[in-house]
Amino acid sequence: MPPWHPGHSPMTHANAPRGLRLHIGLFGRRNVGKSSLLNALTRQQVAIVSAQAGTTTDPVEKPMELLPLGPVVFIDTAGLDDDSALGDQRVAKTRQAFERTDLALLVTDGAWGPYEQGIAAAMAERQTPVIVVRSKADLPAPEVALPPDLPVVAVSAQTGDGLNALRHALVDHAPADVISQPDILGDLVGPGNLAVLVVPIDKEAPKGRLILPQVQAIRDLLDNDAFCLVVKERELAAALDQLKSPPKLVVTDSQVFLKVAADTPPEVPLTSFSILFSRFKGDLLSQTLGALAIDTLRPGDRVLIAEACTHHPIAEDIGRVKIPRWLTQYVGGALEFTTVAGHEYPEDLSPYKLVVHCGGCTFNRKAMLNRILQARQAGVPLTNYGLTIAYSLGLFERALRPFPGVYEAYRAHRGEGRG
Amino acid sequence: MPPWHPGHSPMTHANAPRGLRLHIGLFGRRNVGKSSLLNALTRQQVAIVSAQAGTTTDPVEKPMELLPLGPVVFIDTAGLDDDSALGDQRVAKTRQAFERTDLALLVTDGAWGPYEQGIAAAMAERQTPVIVVRSKADLPAPEVALPPDLPVVAVSAQTGDGLNALRHALVDHAPADVISQPDILGDLVGPGNLAVLVVPIDKEAPKGRLILPQVQAIRDLLDNDAFCLVVKERELAAALDQLKSPPKLVVTDSQVFLKVAADTPPEVPLTSFSILFSRFKGDLLSQTLGALAIDTLRPGDRVLIAEACTHHPIAEDIGRVKIPRWLTQYVGGALEFTTVAGHEYPEDLSPYKLVVHCGGCTFNRKAMLNRILQARQAGVPLTNYGLTIAYSLGLFERALRPFPGVYEAYRAHRGEGRG
Repeated sequence: MPPWHPGHSPMTHANAPRGLRLHIGLFGRRNVGKSSLLNALTRQQVAIVSAQAGTTTDPVEKPMELLPLGPVVFIDTAGLDDDSALGDQRVAKTRQAFERTDLALLVTDGAWGPYEQGIAAAMAERQTPVIVVRSKADLPAPEVALPPDLPVVAVSAQTGDGLNALRHALVDHAPADVISQPDILGDLVGPGNLAVLVVPIDKEAPKGRLILPQVQAIRDLLDNDAFCLVVKERELAAALDQLKSPPKLVVTDSQVFLKVAADTPPEVPLTSFSILFSRFKGDLLSQTLGALAIDTLRPGDRVLIAEACTHHPIAEDIGRVKIPRWLTQYVGGALEFTTVAGHEYPEDLSPYKLVVHCGGCTFNRKAMLNRILQARQAGVPLTNYGLTIAYSLGLFERALRPFPGVYEAYRAHRGEGRG
Repeated sequence: MPPWHPGHSPMTHANAPRGLRLHIGLFGRRNVGKSSLLNALTRQQVAIVSAQAGTTTDPVEKPMELLPLGPVVFIDTAGLDDDSALGDQRVAKTRQAFERTDLALLVTDGAWGPYEQGIAAAMAERQTPVIVVRSKADLPAPEVALPPDLPVVAVSAQTGDGLNALRHALVDHAPADVISQPDILGDLVGPGNLAVLVVPIDKEAPKGRLILPQVQAIRDLLDNDAFCLVVKERELAAALDQLKSPPKLVVTDSQVFLKVAADTPPEVPLTSFSILFSRFKGDLLSQTLGALAIDTLRPGDRVLIAEACTHHPIAEDIGRVKIPRWLTQYVGGALEFTTVAGHEYPEDLSPYKLVVHCGGCTFNRKAMLNRILQARQAGVPLTNYGLTIAYSLGLFERALRPFPGVYEAYRAHRGEGRG
């Protein structure tokens, strides 16, 4: 297994508050394959699934890290699927499961009857999105017309066919307010605390402005009742010297990572805007594991550098000059770089050994997650600018330490885990 | 003279570096009225004109505060205007005056001959803008065709006719890089020093963003090798408590001025974003004196509230609700408010007793200066949001103290001057 491929490792968002996790309700009659589906999704995951205690009629909540969506909870309604005797208690439990569901998977092996119609109607009433999973797609089934107004994904838990399409569907149909990460860094800093943001001003910086991720980070801190010191890399040491106690976090533009790492005391947590944006707009765990593929690169390999937008002046130089230079130095031989921006992103990633994506500050998270899924399907590791820079400069571990779950998962993959 | 009308008072930018002053070269043959023109412009000014020493053939530099342009230097070439005997020394001095000129006033009483053509050609060669001043407009003059490719303003120093048109022309034709104030607040803070920016986040703040003046202020500090602490008003006291020494300046959004004034130690300089923008985008001295008209308002008076742009969500509430409320409380009776945005700005300001303009963050300075001139011509005082709020809340003097020149001019107008 290549090092960037997610296998089994500790949960990375074990402490994510319940409200931040996407709750996926798993509905369907007995024997349609709900458990097999869940197992198939789980088998490919980085997560350890720890089922909570429950009676046979309690929906079981199974939290897991579902790449690239991040922390999710599957609400397994296996105990509620007997529609022949729907007692009062069972009705109440089912309603509870409905209420907790952000996105419903309605599993059917081909049948579409009153049970399925009831679930679909209950979800419609709550404006909760539904994905119909046509299970056992490897087996012949009676052709029954599924409802034309709901998305349908055919999946075989046996062969794995359709699992990736289902992941795309989860990303596409998850409610925007749940799929969006709420915090850029406010959760890492906390109310009443100080972060330091290091913002270099070079000739590419737009005149009289800050770039979007910097503005968004400042705003996110204020929204979280935190505050920040904004400073150029040259004045960082002087600025830190003005503080009575060390900041909770230092965040730097990746371009000046080395200088900032040198000027920031080792005990102060340090990361980069781009790594924060991997978490905010993409999936930090997937992209962290993707960065490990840098070690497998050999001279002559093809690397795709991808920028989300076409108008980001500062990205031009990073993506087209600096990252190729750093990667080339790290690999110790010439690589073949292709740089794409905006909609130029290729359908076929198979020629590439690695995809290095920008932070995606102009993307919504869905777009980035779909690109991560696409790379996963093609078997091509995908990482991002900040992670690549940190890796090339030998600052990877330090830059990940502010994210304990991801840091542990990374160390486990390296064989340096806690156990 | 109403209190907002600029009379004579100390120079307000005495320490403005030479390079930041607009240098206006005053050219013309003998007896065309150069001195009268300069005197007429000066008479209306807040400035004390202090001529520097010079020989009769040296161009005399006359620094002054020319409202609303701010600090300018007139290069008076009275000693160079004898074209009958242009000796070597005189040629050299004239060339020096050419080189120092950012904007040329070419004064003629109607003649257009080799002398005027020579000056115009010399300026064209240097890509220096020229305004032709047709002097003595009150006297009949031989109708000579003036060049169609240069702007011409007819002025009578005797009657004052045309002086305001000349001010507009100075604003319109001054080189953009000279007329633009280079600093928002970086010059007040200085390299290696810290400013605190207080940024309230209310329901009107654009989601995930900061408003433009805040971003521009942060960037200006970085451009000046300074740094800043960005904080909400609620966390200000905690943030100040983290600093080993007081900040050089605290800047607040006007909406939370009272709370911030209470939480900022009295010895720490404090002002508002909007007052900084009066200096950056308009003319702080004119607009400070304009604010004094608030004391002359009587119930029933008409007040114009003007917003530069039509899309500024936060300005809506300030301009339409908060400023009217504060002004009404201050005056102690109902005023008649008219609010305009963008291009709705009226041609005729005469119905109004006061114009309260936004900070103009989306304006270029020329546009704002022309509005200040228009108000001056109509005899209507013009001030801005932040100055009005500070005045209404009793924080005017404190908010002006970071600007010593303007503060002194204000105190002189109040009869509290140094002498």
